[in-house]
Amino acid sequence: MKKRILTGDRPTGKLHIGHLIGSLENRVKLQQEYDTYIMIANVQALTDNFDNPGKVKNSIQELLCDYYAVGIDFDISHIFIQSEIPAIHEIFIYLANFATVQQISHNPTIKTELKQKGYEASTPLGFFIYPIHQAADITCVKADLVPVGKDQAPMVESCRELVRKFNNTYSMNVLHEPEALYGVEKNIPGIDGNEKMGKSLNNAIYLSDSAEELRRKVFSVTTDPNRIHPTDPGKVEGNVVFTYHDIFNSNKDEVADLKLRYTTGKVGDVEVKEKLYKAMEQTLAPIREKRYEAEKKKAELLEKVIETSREVRKIARQTADEMKEAMQIKF
Amino acid sequence: MKKRILTGDRPTGKLHIGHLIGSLENRVKLQQEYDTYIMIANVQALTDNFDNPGKVKNSIQELLCDYYAVGIDFDISHIFIQSEIPAIHEIFIYLANFATVQQISHNPTIKTELKQKGYEASTPLGFFIYPIHQAADITCVKADLVPVGKDQAPMVESCRELVRKFNNTYSMNVLHEPEALYGVEKNIPGIDGNEKMGKSLNNAIYLSDSAEELRRKVFSVTTDPNRIHPTDPGKVEGNVVFTYHDIFNSNKDEVADLKLRYTTGKVGDVEVKEKLYKAMEQTLAPIREKRYEAEKKKAELLEKVIETSREVRKIARQTADEMKEAMQIKF
Repeated sequence: MKKRILTGDRPTGKLHIGHLIGSLENRVKLQQEYDTYIMIANVQALTDNFDNPGKVKNSIQELLCDYYAVGIDFDISHIFIQSEIPAIHEIFIYLANFATVQQISHNPTIKTELKQKGYEASTPLGFFIYPIHQAADITCVKADLVPVGKDQAPMVESCRELVRKFNNTYSMNVLHEPEALYGVEKNIPGIDGNEKMGKSLNNAIYLSDSAEELRRKVFSVTTDPNRIHPTDPGKVEGNVVFTYHDIFNSNKDEVADLKLRYTTGKVGDVEVKEKLYKAMEQTLAPIREKRYEAEKKKAELLEKVIETSREVRKIARQTADEMKEAMQIKF
Repeated sequence: MKKRILTGDRPTGKLHIGHLIGSLENRVKLQQEYDTYIMIANVQALTDNFDNPGKVKNSIQELLCDYYAVGIDFDISHIFIQSEIPAIHEIFIYLANFATVQQISHNPTIKTELKQKGYEASTPLGFFIYPIHQAADITCVKADLVPVGKDQAPMVESCRELVRKFNNTYSMNVLHEPEALYGVEKNIPGIDGNEKMGKSLNNAIYLSDSAEELRRKVFSVTTDPNRIHPTDPGKVEGNVVFTYHDIFNSNKDEVADLKLRYTTGKVGDVEVKEKLYKAMEQTLAPIREKRYEAEKKKAELLEKVIETSREVRKIARQTADEMKEAMQIKF
C-alpha cells in the first residue's frame, strides 16, 4: 500500500515560480509514488484574512487552475477544500487538550509570524491556534508523510507529540504519527533581489503571467548594481538573473558562456535577459497553455474537488469518531 | 414565540444542594416560560479532565438522574450532549478570528481559574479557549438568554461582542446576540463552613444522598466554634446550620424560635440539627424518590437526550452553514 501524504496551500493568491520550484514540481512527482492529499486551507487562510473573504474564495479557483497547469492530476491526487471537512475543527478541539498556550507562544515560527503581521500586542485567537489546527489537518486523514522545508520541521514534530500524547492518554493507537518528508530545498529570490518571492512583496513571476508580462518582468530583474556598462566585469553570485538561469536554463553551456562573459565584461544585460526569458518561456509556456485550458473548465475542476472533499469528509469523520470512542464521548 | 434559553452543566460529578438552590430550582421554573436548551458540556468537562474520561462519561448519567429528580421535564426542556453537536467546534473556529489571546489572558475569571488549577505556567490550550467555546455553545442555538450569576456577566458580554464583530464584518445578521438572565443569587456554604459547596471540597450534600447520609452530614455541619455548652449564647449570623434553616425550613416560626434560644443559650445543637434534618428531608425526600425512579430508567433518559441532541445538531449545523455562507466558504 502506498504511503499517504498530506500537503496543501492557503488560498490567498495565485501561485508563482517560487511555488513551482519549491513544491509544485515535487508534488507532481510525488503523486505517482504516494497517496497524495492536497488541502486547500481556506479556513486557515481566513484566520488572517477574515475581513477579506472574497479574496480567499477567488483564490481557490486560481489555485485549482495553477494545480492543473503544473500537472497535478485531479484524478490521482485527492484535492479537497478544508471548509468542507468539519471534523477537522472537532479534531482540533480534542487535540487542544494536549497542547499548551506556552508551547505555542514560544514557538519561534509563531513568534516571527506574529511580529511580521503586527499581531504581537493583539493576537487573533484563530491565528494563534493554527499550529494545532494544522495537526488536525494532518491527523484527520492519518497522513504518513508531510512534505516540508527544514524550517517547518518543528511543526511536524509538534504534531507527532500531540499524536503520542493523545494515544498514550487513552492507551489506544487511534491517531497516526506523521513524518516529515524533506525535499530538495530550492528557494527562489524575487525579481527585485529580495531573497523571498511573494505576492505581498510585489516581486513575483506568476504561473498565470502572459508571455509579455514574463518578458517585462525578466527585463526588470535586478542584476549586479555595481555594473554600469556592458564592458564592466560583473558578479554572478547572488545575481538574480543568473540564479534564474541556473534554475530554468537547461542549456548549461549557454549559462556557463554567459557567466564567463558577464564576469569579464563581454556581455550586455539585454542578451543575458533575452536568453533568460527564452529559457523561462520554455518551462512556463506549456504551463500557461494548460492554465488556459483549466480556466475554461474551472467549474468542472471545482466540482471534482468538492466531490473529493466528500470522500475526505468521510475519512476525517471516521478519525474524529475513533477519537470520540477513545475519549468515551461517542454515543 | 417563547424566548430561547441556553444553560447547562459540566458533567464532572453528581449535583448537590448548592446546584439545587442556585440553579436547578430556577431552571424548573424557567422551562415553562422559555424555550429551554440544557447542554451537558462533556467536551468542555474533558478540557480539565482529559485524563479521566470515565468520570465525565459516568457523570452524564448522574446528571440526567439529578435533572429528572428535581423536575426538569425531558419533554419540555431540550437536554442535549455537547459531543453530539460537532458544529459547535466549527463555530468556535469561526468565532476565534474575532477573539484575541490577550483578551482571554486578561479575563479575571480565567486568571483566577488558571491559578486555582495550577495552570499558570502550563495552560492546556483546550482549557484556555473555553470562553470562546462557550460563545459557540450559546450562538449555535441562537439563544436569546443565558441564565448566569453576576460573576459570569463578562462571559455573556464577551459572547455578545463576538457576535457583533462577526455580524459587522460580514454585514449580515447571522448570529444572535444573547442577553444575560440574572436570577436571585443564592450561594450555599459547605457543611464545613467553607463559603462554597463543592465535590472537590468534600463538603457537599448531594441530591443522591440517602436519608441516613443526609442525617449524618447535617449532624456534622459546623456551628458556632466558640459555643462549647448548650447554655453558652451562640452566634446565628454566618452559622451554617442557620443558613440552611433559612433556606430549607418553611416553618419560619420554628426557625425564629431556634435562633432566639440559640443566641440565649437555651437550645442544644442536637435539637437544632434534628429539626434541620427534618426540614431538609421534606425538600430532599421527594427528589430522592424521583431519583430512584430515574435510576431505573437511566437508559431511557439517555436515549431521549441523544434523540434531542439530533434535533439540536440540525439547528447548530444550520447556524454553522449560515456563518459559512457569510464567510464565502460554503460550497
